[in-house]
Amino acid sequence: KKTYKICCLPGDGIGPEIIAEGKKVLAAVGKRYGVDFKCEDALIGGAAIDACGDPLPEETLAAARASDAVLLASVGGPKWDSTDPAAPRPEQGLLRIRKELGLYTNLRPVQIFAALADASTLRPEVIDGVDMMIVRELTGGLYFGKRERFYDEPGAGTAGAPGQRAYDTLEYREYEIERIARQAFEAARKRRGKVSSVDKANVLETSRMWREIVHRIGAAEYPDVELEDVLVDNAAMQLISRPADFDVVVTENMFGDILSDEAAQITGSLGMLASASLGDGVALYEPSHGSAPDIAGQGIANPLAQILSVEMMLRYSFNMGEAADAVRVAVTAVLDEGWRTRDIADAATPVDRILGTAAMGDEVAKRI
Amino acid sequence: KKTYKICCLPGDGIGPEIIAEGKKVLAAVGKRYGVDFKCEDALIGGAAIDACGDPLPEETLAAARASDAVLLASVGGPKWDSTDPAAPRPEQGLLRIRKELGLYTNLRPVQIFAALADASTLRPEVIDGVDMMIVRELTGGLYFGKRERFYDEPGAGTAGAPGQRAYDTLEYREYEIERIARQAFEAARKRRGKVSSVDKANVLETSRMWREIVHRIGAAEYPDVELEDVLVDNAAMQLISRPADFDVVVTENMFGDILSDEAAQITGSLGMLASASLGDGVALYEPSHGSAPDIAGQGIANPLAQILSVEMMLRYSFNMGEAADAVRVAVTAVLDEGWRTRDIADAATPVDRILGTAAMGDEVAKRI
Ligand SMILES: CC(C)[C@H](C(=O)O)[C@@H](O)C(=O)O
Ligand SMILES: CC(C)[C@H](C(=O)O)[C@@H](O)C(=O)O
Repeated sequence: KKTYKICCLPGDGIGPEIIAEGKKVLAAVGKRYGVDFKCEDALIGGAAIDACGDPLPEETLAAARASDAVLLASVGGPKWDSTDPAAPRPEQGLLRIRKELGLYTNLRPVQIFAALADASTLRPEVIDGVDMMIVRELTGGLYFGKRERFYDEPGAGTAGAPGQRAYDTLEYREYEIERIARQAFEAARKRRGKVSSVDKANVLETSRMWREIVHRIGAAEYPDVELEDVLVDNAAMQLISRPADFDVVVTENMFGDILSDEAAQITGSLGMLASASLGDGVALYEPSHGSAPDIAGQGIANPLAQILSVEMMLRYSFNMGEAADAVRVAVTAVLDEGWRTRDIADAATPVDRILGTAAMGDEVAKRI
Repeated sequence: KKTYKICCLPGDGIGPEIIAEGKKVLAAVGKRYGVDFKCEDALIGGAAIDACGDPLPEETLAAARASDAVLLASVGGPKWDSTDPAAPRPEQGLLRIRKELGLYTNLRPVQIFAALADASTLRPEVIDGVDMMIVRELTGGLYFGKRERFYDEPGAGTAGAPGQRAYDTLEYREYEIERIARQAFEAARKRRGKVSSVDKANVLETSRMWREIVHRIGAAEYPDVELEDVLVDNAAMQLISRPADFDVVVTENMFGDILSDEAAQITGSLGMLASASLGDGVALYEPSHGSAPDIAGQGIANPLAQILSVEMMLRYSFNMGEAADAVRVAVTAVLDEGWRTRDIADAATPVDRILGTAAMGDEVAKRI
């Protein structure tokens, strides 16, 4: 019997509740497809800060490296919010694990579930057919460049007084752009054959370099894939005016952060969207949404994005396409039958169709 | 008779066509209110590169400084697109004039014209009541920080080969954040009393400093104004899910670029939105849209955003509130009577209500 080790990182907020449902679905898949998924929890984020002062303890990193895949729930919360540069922050755990595992490709599929199309604030005819893959560079740019804060800088205060100054650095190297460009072109080949590369080449030097390299790779290695450049401000508009026209969108880390959340919101089903972070070794899967501290511990969080991150894991890490399809079919069936968690329920949802986190996980698991 | 000198910068693409309508409306206002607006054209952007190799010639800058207000149309176009770091770019003209005139505050009102509500891709009930003011910091951050490109950097190419490296710097000083924060709080006092400050404080050092300073100014000087922090990725979502809840949104330069265009698109009437760039001296007014090179020279561009930038000029530079109101009333009346340019026409617009650029300008001017 095949065995896979899964490193599970519940993190903060609703994390522990939703990851339990991810494991439940993994177990159901294992049973049906004769695979043994061995899940072991480790600490990350605020939970890890509370336990040992470090948002990514050494043991967690070691466990992740020794695993076949990492399943993450979510990190962060007001408890650990601080503007003190020296304070440990939950998000550092997430950023560090991405960097340490070399997870430079973040894949965020953006799709509409027919049963939830009404949840979008966009008109139905506009979101009809939306199906894009956002390919976000995940280990470079402003997130990982040098940053500093200075106090008492001459002239940095008002009226020439001393004051504070801070900077962050947006930096890219050629190989970082080459490899993410290839990921985008490869993804496009398996899809509708079009890549929209987003930058701000009319202002930023990194964007001009980005644009040159993406075009060089495209022309030399993927002449069959259509390539367009879109300025980031324009992309923010087009995601709203013509979202269905996008196939693969590739962009640097910060732009990808903003645009992938914007695109997710367009579907109206943020609670339904998962992401995969891939590198050259072990990969990490997580929901696109955050830790939702306001509803943590109440058993009402939507576990479906976490469950769909399991789908991505089956597909990308274990090459279990059939099992992945089974998870998607199960989620779709549950929705089509009218089952909802609160966040995706509306005025027309009968009260007895509104489920808590665990009950929703049960519905999916039993259909596998 | 009062006289004001207006430095007019037609720029590129549809710029010359739309600015002519701005001047037409200014002339009508002058006539009605007994003010003499002396308009003089100067070169900027691609047009200036073509004429003298510099996107912001010295004479233009001198003319702007000597004026009472600057009216800009739009700059840029594929003709001058280049990823060569050494090539002159139209956008540099815009960035430099903002910096040289110290225009650190960019005000972008985002409103819905009732007659055009159907143009939005968002559901009518979602955009109903949208009325926000985006306050974008305009002379700092990534747009103006140090940037460089290096070739032949050891290890920057694939597989450890030499390759390219580039960086841009996101930098802020305390006084830059203090003054833009004050602008936002002041704007909120004249509106609904709420400021949403957008940053990425869970990652960026500049954002943590931004957040601290905005809160300090708010608590000390504007305790009557409500202040919330929104992470930029979350802001990109909330603009779509609950746009009507925003009053004043204040943010740094790059985030402001992205979010203001996103917000503009939400109204569906990008062709209708103007912006004011203010500093301590002469101010600059421009449409929020770009130079639309694809329709340049055809006489079909929508001049209304340019005309509404004249409204902002009257209000902010000349304290002519009544005249500004008259411009807005005229534009609203023209729309309510069903007149449209192509970009804001829809299938239900009778053909004889679709106007060209000059005819639309005439309709507005004659109602003043
Ligand atoms: C928590 C935060 C650092 C993270 C990011 O911005 O990358 C999150 O927003 C995401 O998109 O995964
Ligand atoms: C043309 C470009 C440099 C400019 C900017 O990004 O500031 C434009 O997009 C704008 O928003 O005014």
